[in-house]
Amino acid sequence: MTRTVLESATKTVIIGFDEPFCVIGERINPTGRKKLAAELEAGDFSTVEKDALEQVACGATVLDVNSGAVFTNKMATDPRYADNNFVEPMLMPELINRVQALVDVPLCIDSSVPGALQAGLEACKGRPLLNSVTGEEERLELVLPLVKKYNVPVVAISNDDTGISEDPEVRFAVAKKIVERAADFGIPAHDIVVDPLVMPIGAMATAGHQVFALVRKLREELGVNTTCGASNISFGLPNRHGINAAFLPMAIGAGMTSAIMNPVRAAEMEAIKAANFLMNHDANGGDWIRFSRVIDAVHEGTPFPEAAAAAAAASGGRGGRRRARG
Amino acid sequence: MTRTVLESATKTVIIGFDEPFCVIGERINPTGRKKLAAELEAGDFSTVEKDALEQVACGATVLDVNSGAVFTNKMATDPRYADNNFVEPMLMPELINRVQALVDVPLCIDSSVPGALQAGLEACKGRPLLNSVTGEEERLELVLPLVKKYNVPVVAISNDDTGISEDPEVRFAVAKKIVERAADFGIPAHDIVVDPLVMPIGAMATAGHQVFALVRKLREELGVNTTCGASNISFGLPNRHGINAAFLPMAIGAGMTSAIMNPVRAAEMEAIKAANFLMNHDANGGDWIRFSRVIDAVHEGTPFPEAAAAAAAASGGRGGRRRARG
Repeated sequence: MTRTVLESATKTVIIGFDEPFCVIGERINPTGRKKLAAELEAGDFSTVEKDALEQVACGATVLDVNSGAVFTNKMATDPRYADNNFVEPMLMPELINRVQALVDVPLCIDSSVPGALQAGLEACKGRPLLNSVTGEEERLELVLPLVKKYNVPVVAISNDDTGISEDPEVRFAVAKKIVERAADFGIPAHDIVVDPLVMPIGAMATAGHQVFALVRKLREELGVNTTCGASNISFGLPNRHGINAAFLPMAIGAGMTSAIMNPVRAAEMEAIKAANFLMNHDANGGDWIRFSRVIDAVHEGTPFPEAAAAAAAASGGRGGRRRARG
Repeated sequence: MTRTVLESATKTVIIGFDEPFCVIGERINPTGRKKLAAELEAGDFSTVEKDALEQVACGATVLDVNSGAVFTNKMATDPRYADNNFVEPMLMPELINRVQALVDVPLCIDSSVPGALQAGLEACKGRPLLNSVTGEEERLELVLPLVKKYNVPVVAISNDDTGISEDPEVRFAVAKKIVERAADFGIPAHDIVVDPLVMPIGAMATAGHQVFALVRKLREELGVNTTCGASNISFGLPNRHGINAAFLPMAIGAGMTSAIMNPVRAAEMEAIKAANFLMNHDANGGDWIRFSRVIDAVHEGTPFPEAAAAAAAASGGRGGRRRARG
């Protein structure tokens, strides 16, 4: 029974074969969000705080915190601000402190800068998920010691020094190598959450089928939990939410146990709630029935985040919002 | 490679592991539709004709024709009209003739009355699907000779003289028995489409998971195609379409190849179109892209059947509507 244990200050979330699908909210991420990056540079965390609250209300049980920004105004006077290696280790703990002050869900510390990962690990309460290590030699040597030192689970992305293979067997082999290297450090397989890499089906017709087969194999042969950037599957296609909302239940049926995704989308969250029920991970359908009321409100015209927030408030902070500080 | 071949007068539909999911429209069925039964008694086939056109436009590639009616007005003067065994053998060919005159898709002849099955087989052009045989001794002896004589495929429902078992292993054993008995008649496994029986998850928490495992096993061990009454899964639950729309992709991912269902529902049909694409059964996503335009129209307020009919008309009768008779 593979269980990856994540913790916030007071809450535990298990990613596991017998658990509801773990929704890791992706929105706190300045990469490609210029407006957000500019706000962060100006010390304005209001969007981050809104994203934290909204994602938790909509059903994220873990929040990804990505510090991928450079500071374009400051770099005019100090060129160090053009460097992620300089900006991110300062920014990451700030982001984490803001989010932790507001919501009580485990975090996923997301950066390609080792210094930012370390600073995040220092700032984080509980047991966060580290995002990520790859099969690249340099990354293995930099990240696995942090995973061991802080005793946290880690996302393992199945690419290596040769890049991302289109061959799922190669991606499986990379995942296996990471699990084996982690074992050399004393890190157990249940603390590795493999991302088998989801390609867009618009570009590669076998992409969906490939992921389902890979997830099943990763689970059966390596005994690991899995995650993915779910929306990649529909990149470039019309009506993306329709593709995503079929992909997620199919991935869950194949054994995928988490995704890094935008939870502020009714179609995708409804598909996940239904899939949890169909996998017998929603005792008596209680969660489905609660969520159905949110869907009813959406059908009547209430925007999903508002309907979800109202339902979360009515259920007494079930969504993980912290009580007001006294 | 299991392929179940169905034919209308001019069209071939394959149910198969490497084919798009086969949607068998369920609406032509007076069982539980009192108004429709009364219309049929009065010789009014307008609802049947509307249902035939609408279902094909919405994406059904096969139409189920169920004759399950008794004639409540006529029975006052002639008690034979209270008997399905009297009514259905007359009604079935009439239904089939009306439907065949209007749409050119293969039919699924659906009755519990052997005389109605035989009359339907006589009336049907092409190679219809017979619905159904069970593992009950009497049904095996009555239906399998018809299947052999007319060289048609048959739906095999996994219950037997002991009823419907809640144990999936028993349901698998019943399916296996039917396949073996069919073989004794010279009927090949690829002409058996097994319905493993879908229970409501509201009543049985393991129902979804059970079906997915059964479908996989039926496919791997017996090499048969599968079908189900898809909407059973959500019986009694709120927001049923949300459950159905997750169930169908999960069943498709597990290997289910057809369902008897209501195709006049955007949520379910969208889920199936997306699942076909994700299974690599929609070359270049052409069908998804066409269907996305229908969904766009639905989002703008056009009812789904109208939007689907407009798209079918624009594509030159792709939906299987017969050309106007000259």
